[in-house]
Amino acid sequence: MDIKKYFIKRTTITNKALKVFIKALQDVPPILQKSMLYSLSAGGKRLRPVLLTATYEIFGGKKEDVLPAACSIEMIHTYSLIHDDLPSLDNDDLRRGKPTNHKVFGEALAVLAGDALLTNAFTVLGHNAETGKIKEKNVLDCVRILAKYAGAGGMVGGQAADLGAEGFLQGKKLSLRSNKKLFNAANDLLNYIHLHKTAGLISASVEMGAVLASASPKDFKHLSNYARSIGLAFQIVDDVLDVIGDKKKLGKKGSDARNKKLTYVSLFGIEESNSHAARLIAEAHDELDKVSGSVKAKTVLHEIADFIVKRDK
Amino acid sequence: MDIKKYFIKRTTITNKALKVFIKALQDVPPILQKSMLYSLSAGGKRLRPVLLTATYEIFGGKKEDVLPAACSIEMIHTYSLIHDDLPSLDNDDLRRGKPTNHKVFGEALAVLAGDALLTNAFTVLGHNAETGKIKEKNVLDCVRILAKYAGAGGMVGGQAADLGAEGFLQGKKLSLRSNKKLFNAANDLLNYIHLHKTAGLISASVEMGAVLASASPKDFKHLSNYARSIGLAFQIVDDVLDVIGDKKKLGKKGSDARNKKLTYVSLFGIEESNSHAARLIAEAHDELDKVSGSVKAKTVLHEIADFIVKRDK
Repeated sequence: MDIKKYFIKRTTITNKALKVFIKALQDVPPILQKSMLYSLSAGGKRLRPVLLTATYEIFGGKKEDVLPAACSIEMIHTYSLIHDDLPSLDNDDLRRGKPTNHKVFGEALAVLAGDALLTNAFTVLGHNAETGKIKEKNVLDCVRILAKYAGAGGMVGGQAADLGAEGFLQGKKLSLRSNKKLFNAANDLLNYIHLHKTAGLISASVEMGAVLASASPKDFKHLSNYARSIGLAFQIVDDVLDVIGDKKKLGKKGSDARNKKLTYVSLFGIEESNSHAARLIAEAHDELDKVSGSVKAKTVLHEIADFIVKRDK
Repeated sequence: MDIKKYFIKRTTITNKALKVFIKALQDVPPILQKSMLYSLSAGGKRLRPVLLTATYEIFGGKKEDVLPAACSIEMIHTYSLIHDDLPSLDNDDLRRGKPTNHKVFGEALAVLAGDALLTNAFTVLGHNAETGKIKEKNVLDCVRILAKYAGAGGMVGGQAADLGAEGFLQGKKLSLRSNKKLFNAANDLLNYIHLHKTAGLISASVEMGAVLASASPKDFKHLSNYARSIGLAFQIVDDVLDVIGDKKKLGKKGSDARNKKLTYVSLFGIEESNSHAARLIAEAHDELDKVSGSVKAKTVLHEIADFIVKRDK
């Protein structure tokens, strides 16, 4: 299969659904709706919705049954980018080649647009109980999963740890490899950040897809392991691309080095980062093989794992 | 009954539960947990949890059954205060007599602590399905209600409209009473702001209490009307207190006048504001009388309605 074509096709469906869900929210001030749609429409691969629908489809369901849940994760992802770009956090002017939300709408409205996307992600997720295909219990479980991976012990926790890691390497770079205690502390912190900041929502996507399909506990576990591995690999590749990637393709300046951030590359170098990502993807394939269902049904998730290390943006 | 004593008793229970729920979140960076607890522990009447539990109790349930839902609303309320105080929004240094979150933890962590409280409010709400007393369907309905009243078409929408209203009166004050069109526009905008920014979460509290108790559609409607009336009255009294209140009691400077905000007082004056609040409270009592159940069971909600116009902070 051509995974790039698959992504383009799925992205179109997700984009359309996202617009419908946002416009269905009643009583929203026009400027706030505009700001929400601006960041939601800024492009991107829609990796998380694709992972959720593809996981659900392994078990025989149709993607249309779980579009609300798929869109809810993309709304959470988008809010996190808006807040992450704020002057008080990463202070980024560009995102996917376009001015960031606060550059266009001002800081106050960017904070609120992020808050609204985060809150109404749960409205949209709730719609999934109205498709008639999904049990209410499963939707409520998805609320729990989404809040867990997006909240204080998940993505937001990762962001908070990342703040503390800012400047971690300042003046310590030389002693890092000779000072084992410092290296271990850096490694622990880095693992926490990677696992929570990025891998969290990827885990949520796959776990929600599995729960919506009423997957068995065994299948759920292997899919959850798969997600954790590709999520970590995704962040490692992100760190590498921030250093070596084509700035034009990435649509942003490499801000990690500028901020002296603790990243996989700054700790292990590019070569070891790439091999670690490859090891994680191999693990992901193994986990996927243990999930019940035909090889064909799992093709997309296999292809996505490979795509994550091969992407150039 | 002594409503003040009642509030103190209930506040103690809510405060304890809030701490338990926050500490039960796993894998949270200590500084983030500290920042969340700082704002949650900053005092306040816990009006929203009290409204939720008192509404639930009308129908014979025990408050312990719905403490998770009650705490989830307080978490949403607290996050909104943290973000509202940010330099890019209201830029307030004090809240309830204590330095605001960003003054203590910095702006970046304040944004994240707000995001975490908002997200994990849904984790805590999810716990309400684990008390064994509440149907999963009812908890899922609460997720919908909370997201609706807190999101883009609710509280966040009210905040966004409030941003647009900032400076609305600048240079227009004199012509406001002679220019009918301008006056009507101001009145419409003000109504939107009041109904969404403050009344929304008060509506959510009462409606969630009713849904958790499986109230009949008729009772739900009257309770919802009650909530809307006391919510509007609450914001009007807030506007009045911002002008005439004892700064020490309020624990904050009156920032509305400083920011030339559109408020009930700036539009109608103090006297008409007070009579409108009183009219709304009378309506609230009428609606409450139409709710089934003994007069005694509804005493607390009657007392809260009166308390809202009599409070001095």
